[in-house]
Amino acid sequence: MIWKFRSEFEKMTTTDGKIRIGLSMRYLGYHMAAWRHPDVPAAGAIDFNYFLRTAKKAEEAKLDMIFFADGIGVRANDTPKGSLARDAKNAELEPLTLLAAIGACTSHIGLVATASTTYNEPFHIARKYASIDHISGGRAGWNVVTSWSQQEAWNFSRDEHLGYEERYERADEFVEVVRKLWDSWEDDAFIRDKASGVFYDETMLHVPNHKGKHFKVRGPLNSARTPQGRPIIVQAGAAEAGRELAARYADVVYSNAGSMEGAKVYYDDLKGRLAKYGRTPDQLLIMPGVTLYVGKTRGEAQDKFDQLQNLIDPLSGMAILYGVLGDLSEYDLDGPVPDVGNQRVRSIAENLLALAHRENLTIRQMYKRVASGNNWQIVGTAQDIVDELERWFRAGAADGFNICPATLPQGVDDLTQYILPELRKRGLFRTEYEASTLRGNLGLQPLHFGD
Amino acid sequence: MIWKFRSEFEKMTTTDGKIRIGLSMRYLGYHMAAWRHPDVPAAGAIDFNYFLRTAKKAEEAKLDMIFFADGIGVRANDTPKGSLARDAKNAELEPLTLLAAIGACTSHIGLVATASTTYNEPFHIARKYASIDHISGGRAGWNVVTSWSQQEAWNFSRDEHLGYEERYERADEFVEVVRKLWDSWEDDAFIRDKASGVFYDETMLHVPNHKGKHFKVRGPLNSARTPQGRPIIVQAGAAEAGRELAARYADVVYSNAGSMEGAKVYYDDLKGRLAKYGRTPDQLLIMPGVTLYVGKTRGEAQDKFDQLQNLIDPLSGMAILYGVLGDLSEYDLDGPVPDVGNQRVRSIAENLLALAHRENLTIRQMYKRVASGNNWQIVGTAQDIVDELERWFRAGAADGFNICPATLPQGVDDLTQYILPELRKRGLFRTEYEASTLRGNLGLQPLHFGD
Ligand SMILES: Cc1cc2nc3c(=O)[nH]c(=O)nc-3n(C[C@H](O)[C@H](O)[C@H](O)COP(=O)(O)O)c2cc1C
Ligand SMILES: Cc1cc2nc3c(=O)[nH]c(=O)nc-3n(C[C@H](O)[C@H](O)[C@H](O)COP(=O)(O)O)c2cc1C
Repeated sequence: MIWKFRSEFEKMTTTDGKIRIGLSMRYLGYHMAAWRHPDVPAAGAIDFNYFLRTAKKAEEAKLDMIFFADGIGVRANDTPKGSLARDAKNAELEPLTLLAAIGACTSHIGLVATASTTYNEPFHIARKYASIDHISGGRAGWNVVTSWSQQEAWNFSRDEHLGYEERYERADEFVEVVRKLWDSWEDDAFIRDKASGVFYDETMLHVPNHKGKHFKVRGPLNSARTPQGRPIIVQAGAAEAGRELAARYADVVYSNAGSMEGAKVYYDDLKGRLAKYGRTPDQLLIMPGVTLYVGKTRGEAQDKFDQLQNLIDPLSGMAILYGVLGDLSEYDLDGPVPDVGNQRVRSIAENLLALAHRENLTIRQMYKRVASGNNWQIVGTAQDIVDELERWFRAGAADGFNICPATLPQGVDDLTQYILPELRKRGLFRTEYEASTLRGNLGLQPLHFGD
Repeated sequence: MIWKFRSEFEKMTTTDGKIRIGLSMRYLGYHMAAWRHPDVPAAGAIDFNYFLRTAKKAEEAKLDMIFFADGIGVRANDTPKGSLARDAKNAELEPLTLLAAIGACTSHIGLVATASTTYNEPFHIARKYASIDHISGGRAGWNVVTSWSQQEAWNFSRDEHLGYEERYERADEFVEVVRKLWDSWEDDAFIRDKASGVFYDETMLHVPNHKGKHFKVRGPLNSARTPQGRPIIVQAGAAEAGRELAARYADVVYSNAGSMEGAKVYYDDLKGRLAKYGRTPDQLLIMPGVTLYVGKTRGEAQDKFDQLQNLIDPLSGMAILYGVLGDLSEYDLDGPVPDVGNQRVRSIAENLLALAHRENLTIRQMYKRVASGNNWQIVGTAQDIVDELERWFRAGAADGFNICPATLPQGVDDLTQYILPELRKRGLFRTEYEASTLRGNLGLQPLHFGD
């Protein structure tokens, strides 16, 4: 394993040389046909006990955190008739209430949920995450997103989604205000002295009084400083403004990766941006998303993958091509991909068509390819998979991984049964939680008032 | 007991002749000095376990529901220097996350929290309460308020709080939108047929597409219809627009009552407004708030009350007079109330001053009177208290009561030990939950799609 040379070792950024692992738990898994899998509880996405069972398994496995992506609206309108009804992503629990409920029934695992800066108010967001941090004893994290879909705008009395620049300008100020609110009270502000009648020390209250372009927020937050000082900030910036937001504020980046080389370029770029905000590389953990198909043999792993691919309903399959290639429902599913395409996304369409021609793909083969191609995925034995994860980690392309399981709860069982034992054998993953806070388990330094 | 005559009996509106009981659980109790009481855990308002223990006691007692009032901001600015630091109401948990967390650890008790229509978006509110209803198996309720303080406006990028009329106009449309969102999906819309690949029945999705004066919300809600059909709506309208909102939408009214006669006038007025919205009197439960000081003897009860009154810090005491009478800190606490007053609230000031002169009150006596005078309260033995509650119930002035305990968790222990046994002896309170949903336990009819 050539990447174990000393120079490669030094690229590892996590302070203890351990890989961080998060579990993306939205819906019933990340494969679009997950709900049709015979072992998946199809009603799970609105069943609290399904989420709780899965979260408890993740905690038994000693994962760093569970993670809920989110969108505020049923996103599909750009789909052919009938396909939306085949999509399991229309009914789910709301992530902050879900996180709080899971927090009440677990003790160590980190709890990260997504909230949009475009369709929220900083005071509510600061308050709710602070509350979850208190409820969970210091395990809350906020995945900061700016949203992207037209359907979300329509649910919030807007005709159009904000443009990229404005969205990120708002996001930046939004996070700034939230941090100020979280810093309203010093660590020991509340003395609660029954004898004197003094509840808090007045010199330890700092009223933010923020006045900016997008927000005017006086504060203070009506919550004591939280167990983590401030909840963890997660972000996933890809383009320029997103990367700057991550570099400035994020403790964790959950990124989308294709190749290790691309991931490494992204990693170096992002870590390189930290210095200008007075931060050091170990203050930001970069964790690319990955979907794992594991089996005792490579054949077994491949079968797992194929089983799901074959469960993709043709209407749903065509729906994912619809935005780029238009309506293909009049063409033969097992015939060649026709030479059509949406002018709005001409370059994406051309790439797809080139791929189809190069590999002689049918429509069915094409949508299967696209369905599984969004995330990085590895199909193989535990040995194969851990080899690859270790390679990324040692090469300095990742500090850990955000596991996006194809199906749940199988995805977490696979970690417990196959992946984690192999990682532990190599000394790359914890056997016990080091701390009771997310910040502590991530190996990030404790945060004191004024930091 | 003259009120047990047949004609009086008929005034009872609850369908089973039982009294409904809710427990207001905000902070550490409703007495302003509660936190200084030797038996009260002063850090409780940010301690999830304190709330959970209290909620579990309330569930063991078989209460209908717990209730969290809320304000979005530290409300005091109209207070003399130093007094805010003596007030325990500056740091608390956020009620929706708290409710979800409690919901995960209880099984029968109703879960009601407050959210403002002035500083929220209907989509978020519909979604979060729906989620709590799913998480708790049908026990969620929303206390609809329009907010009232200047401090809240300042936390949400507004200079001024909305005026009464505009606030209620917005509230009305807000609740309308939330209800439409809750009705996005019919009861059995999600068929999740793995074989055919159809997740929901398209004919059972109803996209709201609301376009009104204050909101444009397309929907649908990304959540299945909830176990209760729709979460319970609680409201506390006092003035005209508030009463109309309650009559139109509320399942429960948590009211402020002084005398039984006043409560009865309010009760009759509100129930009388239902018909015009096609509703019957049994579809709205009216539950005045009451604070109980109970002891084995009247003397013991009075001692409990006096103990708390004597714990009121003078600075905090003067703070509650400040808004009406101005700064009294230069006057002798044990001297007469000076003849001053704020012009903005002249009529309230005049009433207070008249009272002070009539009864020859000192400043200290005056603030004690005001501190305890906001809510209806009863000081006495279990027998005394239950006599009074029964009198209100039988007279048709209340369908139940919203207990606002002076201190917690003592307030719920007092219910268990003193009040409920006496109510049960008289057949006026349940011994077991009738249902697993809040709607069921309140005796409200099941709600089907289209109702
Ligand atoms: C792992 C991952 C999770 C994400 N989760 C969400 C999400 O839950 N909701 C959302 O609106 N966007 C989500 N995004 C989108 C990102 O917030 C961001 O917009 C995207 O990475 C593109 O970055 P950019 O906006 O800087 O171009 C996610 C992205 C990644 C890589
Ligand atoms: C028992 C009770 C609880 C209330 N809880 C809240 C609350 O938590 N937050 C809030 O802003 N207003 C609260 N209010 C105020 C009411 O929503 C309402 O504004 C008030 O009763 C006056 O009614 P009106 O607005 O129709 O004049 C409460 C009122 C009562 C009686």
